[in-house]
Amino acid sequence: MTKGKTPEETSVVMTQLVLPGMTNLLGNLLGGQMMHWMDVAGALCCMRHCNMNVATIAVEALEFRHPVRQGEMVCLKAKLIWAGKTSMKVKITAEAENLATGATIVTNVAKYTFVALDKEGRKAAVPRLIPQTAEEKADFAFEEAAYRRRISGG
Amino acid sequence: MTKGKTPEETSVVMTQLVLPGMTNLLGNLLGGQMMHWMDVAGALCCMRHCNMNVATIAVEALEFRHPVRQGEMVCLKAKLIWAGKTSMKVKITAEAENLATGATIVTNVAKYTFVALDKEGRKAAVPRLIPQTAEEKADFAFEEAAYRRRISGG
Amino acid sequence: MTKGKTPEETSVVMTQLVLPGMTNLLGNLLGGQMMHWMDVAGALCCMRHCNMNVATIAVEALEFRHPVRQGEMVCLKAKLIWAGKTSMKVKITAEAENLATGATIVTNVAKYTFVALDKEGRKAAVPRLIPQTAEEKADFAFEEAAYRRRISGG
Amino acid sequence: MTKGKTPEETSVVMTQLVLPGMTNLLGNLLGGQMMHWMDVAGALCCMRHCNMNVATIAVEALEFRHPVRQGEMVCLKAKLIWAGKTSMKVKITAEAENLATGATIVTNVAKYTFVALDKEGRKAAVPRLIPQTAEEKADFAFEEAAYRRRISGG
Amino acid sequence: MTKGKTPEETSVVMTQLVLPGMTNLLGNLLGGQMMHWMDVAGALCCMRHCNMNVATIAVEALEFRHPVRQGEMVCLKAKLIWAGKTSMKVKITAEAENLATGATIVTNVAKYTFVALDKEGRKAAVPRLIPQTAEEKADFAFEEAAYRRRISGG
Amino acid sequence: MTKGKTPEETSVVMTQLVLPGMTNLLGNLLGGQMMHWMDVAGALCCMRHCNMNVATIAVEALEFRHPVRQGEMVCLKAKLIWAGKTSMKVKITAEAENLATGATIVTNVAKYTFVALDKEGRKAAVPRLIPQTAEEKADFAFEEAAYRRRISGG
Repeated sequence: MTKGKTPEETSVVMTQLVLPGMTNLLGNLLGGQMMHWMDVAGALCCMRHCNMNVATIAVEALEFRHPVRQGEMVCLKAKLIWAGKTSMKVKITAEAENLATGATIVTNVAKYTFVALDKEGRKAAVPRLIPQTAEEKADFAFEEAAYRRRISGG
Repeated sequence: MTKGKTPEETSVVMTQLVLPGMTNLLGNLLGGQMMHWMDVAGALCCMRHCNMNVATIAVEALEFRHPVRQGEMVCLKAKLIWAGKTSMKVKITAEAENLATGATIVTNVAKYTFVALDKEGRKAAVPRLIPQTAEEKADFAFEEAAYRRRISGG
Repeated sequence: MTKGKTPEETSVVMTQLVLPGMTNLLGNLLGGQMMHWMDVAGALCCMRHCNMNVATIAVEALEFRHPVRQGEMVCLKAKLIWAGKTSMKVKITAEAENLATGATIVTNVAKYTFVALDKEGRKAAVPRLIPQTAEEKADFAFEEAAYRRRISGG
Repeated sequence: MTKGKTPEETSVVMTQLVLPGMTNLLGNLLGGQMMHWMDVAGALCCMRHCNMNVATIAVEALEFRHPVRQGEMVCLKAKLIWAGKTSMKVKITAEAENLATGATIVTNVAKYTFVALDKEGRKAAVPRLIPQTAEEKADFAFEEAAYRRRISGG
Repeated sequence: MTKGKTPEETSVVMTQLVLPGMTNLLGNLLGGQMMHWMDVAGALCCMRHCNMNVATIAVEALEFRHPVRQGEMVCLKAKLIWAGKTSMKVKITAEAENLATGATIVTNVAKYTFVALDKEGRKAAVPRLIPQTAEEKADFAFEEAAYRRRISGG
Repeated sequence: MTKGKTPEETSVVMTQLVLPGMTNLLGNLLGGQMMHWMDVAGALCCMRHCNMNVATIAVEALEFRHPVRQGEMVCLKAKLIWAGKTSMKVKITAEAENLATGATIVTNVAKYTFVALDKEGRKAAVPRLIPQTAEEKADFAFEEAAYRRRISGG
């Protein structure tokens, strides 16, 4: 029987370079490209947690704080913050690095929720998430409270 | 001086076919591809409204209610629901159609917020949005109230 | 037994934005990208008409009247104009909209012919097409005459 | 002063492999992908002929005689068949090769017309085309006659 | 029983145009795009030689002698230089052509090694390679010697 | 004046998911896609080291030890091992993780060499590389010796 996993052991770091074919009319990274990278990074955390396929079911609080310019490096960090019976929530942060100066800035944050699917495509139970650090415990408690309010219709 | 525009005159209909290269490991449309289509459809509404370039600044309430299968048709409808001084909010609905049966189902809904940018990339004022139907007026009032709460820190 | 369908009920509207990655060396939309969009829009009409898979078998009278510039919106409209025993012909019109001025221009027109395929990949019978408006009836009659000349070797 | 060029010296051979990401719902090459390859192969012939940028202005007689399967090799051959004052016509033939058996079949033929554009994007004069073989001379005469009928309104 | 094949009968010519979506931050062809084209061209030679699927197992001596600019034509030539029991080595040369001047330059050379795989994905025996010209015979002898040194641990 | 950088401070971790559109006819990751990821990861290390644009000039010792299956996660690690006056060499390792079992395997190793380019596209001097660990020092010494043999024609 699975004993649960920590957020750290399934976390993902994804580095990308903003190439000309990924930009919009202003020479900035397409919003849809950023959302796709976040989706893949988040899905990878969840697949590592449950060892099954997953499907995106919601995106909340996705902010574009600063544009990312063509030629910048993007470093996405994704980590599980909550897991319920069959669903998992991931926090994803994207940081852009100006490669000429080395300056970095957090450009995007978001929470993506995924559901685990078995081989027949039915929702399936996932291991417990075992937060370790104070921040991980606070994030987990916040999401657990939000979840309880939602299912109680509160 | 611009007299404002209605939601209808800048609305966008975007139809797509889910091809094999757009799917995840389950044969369903990639979440990131759907988010990209929504981003483009929303940006088009806003560019038609303000006749300027726009940048995505937030995504809220993005739900994936049902998976979209490879081979299905997706019809996205995007319409402005609110405009402030420099930002605009678009509601986007995606409906999947099973081409073998003709059955349709709403698979995704989301609200995307964009900001207008002038040629130097600075935030720029946008025309007023003039809701016409009862539903458009209700959506506008809802978003206006949310906006007022946010700026008053409420 | 199927009673036939009108051109209107299977028509398709597809809106696209010309992004930097879709352009040729002059900053105009790649011809191949436009042809691909037309192909997909036409295939969708036919799949909605016959509720089967379809394959492109011919393209005729494809004109590029004006270039489409990077940053312009393209609105493609596709509608069935003729259906025979197993093949269907679609008329597709593409209109570009300059998003800074709102000006529109018809840039491309074409007729694509598709054939319906059953699950074994064999040609399959399609429903009758029932033109409604005067224009739809004229288009149908024109294509029917062309078809009769072709099969009679005329 | 340029003395004209033969069809042979600007002809192009383009070989491609049909990968999974290029296929439609039946596992066959997308029609739009084939049209894109033809467009690029034809444009290359014309650019080599006129040493300028070119734009596609028409596609005629594009036939899809046989589907191309995923995993097959496609060999496209493009050669100029006619050049006028500013426009050029290319004949493009695509042949699929089954890599397990070595069997080949001509799957597509088409004629694409391009126009030469100078650095300001205006139509520009192109070198004469000097057909050499009997077939090249016949093709040229056929297209020249078609052109003369068209400009005389015949 | 198969009698072997010559390098010439399975050689491949692949012509490509460097479009804006394929370039890096300097407007030059992405290295990864060139490597992908070489990989496909090389795989096609090998698949034509063995009439089976193949997998890339090594790349050696890949040089980027000159950058390829956006808007240039690339002509890749791939030809088998050696075949062992289950593996095959291909030499691939890429030449860029400036379409405004017609000037050409060899930009890349590389040797890719592939292995033949049967339908179960196991290594499978390939036909003999029968070099014909003096250059083909010298290349074969060089690679055969290298292979013998490698397996003898020399 | 720049004091040099360690390999660690410019190293890059890039995680990717093998989606259906990235696979060959066997359902394995395309070799060209892997080479592209390696190229980008390596270029990022070098751009962080020299704070300039870079161009790939050579790939050596690129091995495909095991195929990467559709649905697997790939984690690429890139780190500078040597820097000369204007060129830099990066070692890149790719590890595939089976998301159903958590098992990992090193699938690819390679060394890519890049050159720094200033804004006019000319070769430019790069900071010193300061290896720290025993392994970094050994790698540096090995490459420095190889470099000295090469320039002395040895």
